[in-house]
Amino acid sequence: MKRVVLIRHGESKWNKENRFTGWTDVDLTEKGIEEAHKAGKYLKKEGFQFEKAYTSYLKRAVKTLNVVLDEMDLDWIPVEKTWRLNEKHYGMLQGLNKAETAEKYGDDQVLIWRRSYDVPPTALAKDDERSPFQDPRYKDVDEKDLPLTEALKDTVERILPYWNETIVPDMKKYNEVIVAAHGNSLRGIIKHLKNISDEDIVSLNLPTAVPYVFEFDDDMNLLKDYFLGDPEEIKKLMEAVANQGKAK
Amino acid sequence: MKRVVLIRHGESKWNKENRFTGWTDVDLTEKGIEEAHKAGKYLKKEGFQFEKAYTSYLKRAVKTLNVVLDEMDLDWIPVEKTWRLNEKHYGMLQGLNKAETAEKYGDDQVLIWRRSYDVPPTALAKDDERSPFQDPRYKDVDEKDLPLTEALKDTVERILPYWNETIVPDMKKYNEVIVAAHGNSLRGIIKHLKNISDEDIVSLNLPTAVPYVFEFDDDMNLLKDYFLGDPEEIKKLMEAVANQGKAK
Repeated sequence: MKRVVLIRHGESKWNKENRFTGWTDVDLTEKGIEEAHKAGKYLKKEGFQFEKAYTSYLKRAVKTLNVVLDEMDLDWIPVEKTWRLNEKHYGMLQGLNKAETAEKYGDDQVLIWRRSYDVPPTALAKDDERSPFQDPRYKDVDEKDLPLTEALKDTVERILPYWNETIVPDMKKYNEVIVAAHGNSLRGIIKHLKNISDEDIVSLNLPTAVPYVFEFDDDMNLLKDYFLGDPEEIKKLMEAVANQGKAK
Repeated sequence: MKRVVLIRHGESKWNKENRFTGWTDVDLTEKGIEEAHKAGKYLKKEGFQFEKAYTSYLKRAVKTLNVVLDEMDLDWIPVEKTWRLNEKHYGMLQGLNKAETAEKYGDDQVLIWRRSYDVPPTALAKDDERSPFQDPRYKDVDEKDLPLTEALKDTVERILPYWNETIVPDMKKYNEVIVAAHGNSLRGIIKHLKNISDEDIVSLNLPTAVPYVFEFDDDMNLLKDYFLGDPEEIKKLMEAVANQGKAK
């Protein structure tokens, strides 16, 4: 049996401030770090032994992973970082408060921007200081791949090549790996693995820092998937995420 | 100009308890974590922009690096971990208190074990629980390369292939990299770069978590090297390391 664990980063400073983050490299809060410790302890108790880890170019995911691996005494395993696991790019919304944006444009418009499958927010200008073209970490990424905004559809499309061409081939060598990333980048993987429709994927609200386990046979056919943790607590966490975009 | 920064991990729990550590995977102390923060802040202030990092399989080095990179907003850069950057393997001494060992065998014998260039401590048995043959993290290392004890000479010999075959070729692509490792593994690199004799290298006492900068021309000829920090403070730190092995 093979196992892939997906984990969304712990609470970030902008989760707390309820702002659109996207590719902005904001840090974890103290609570977010605590969530990561808890996840790492749980994974250790359940006997997971990851052999490789994957994460994004954003520190809230990298640091969540570092804490999880340290709790598991797995600081030494290889970690591969990729821009393809970054959060959905939120275009011009990056930095704006979700509730203020909702008051200004209405809950419905914000819900479209946040949750429609194929409508992206207005794009950033290439020379906007928030643009990935202004950030040296993306200098080796092919310009045609670099987004100035994304619909969830775009996020899914840039993640799947990484899943199919890096993680799946790696699973010939490894039995257990972990992917520490973001609400929308993980949606892309989950949509693919569980064959979820475009309509349904937008209402999947992944709780922060709760390990989501996918079990596969040796040919990487999905056998089952489940969250690690208390079901009641996980339900509350998912509802909290769903309610973030509302004005009040 | 190319720059390679070497950094020895911050204070570990066994540094503090004055025990021979070697390949034992002990954690940093609070002070050790603070030292790493300080080094990261200093490197940021001096304008370093590392493009890749290298570290060992041991958490005191990995975590020192993670803290340094986080202070520099460089959490996203690639990090390569290798057993070849591990500390010198201390054989049967691993876990023993340095002062107690000195009382039992005499300062001179301990100094030979710690500081002679080519006399290794007594080897561990292959099935000793401290042996790397019992640790899954080394399962992919060629058995003939795995040590059960090492003289500094052996440590130097297993590090140089990594310097020559991985780091130097990488410097065609990168201008600035950092290597976070251990007192003896870094001695290996420094001995090679500065052409230090077998006799002299054993008295080079590297301070913990002080960035040691090596500047090269584009063909990787060494131009100069210097520590980052207050010279008086660095001198005290080096003396403290030199005095660790004494009975009182």
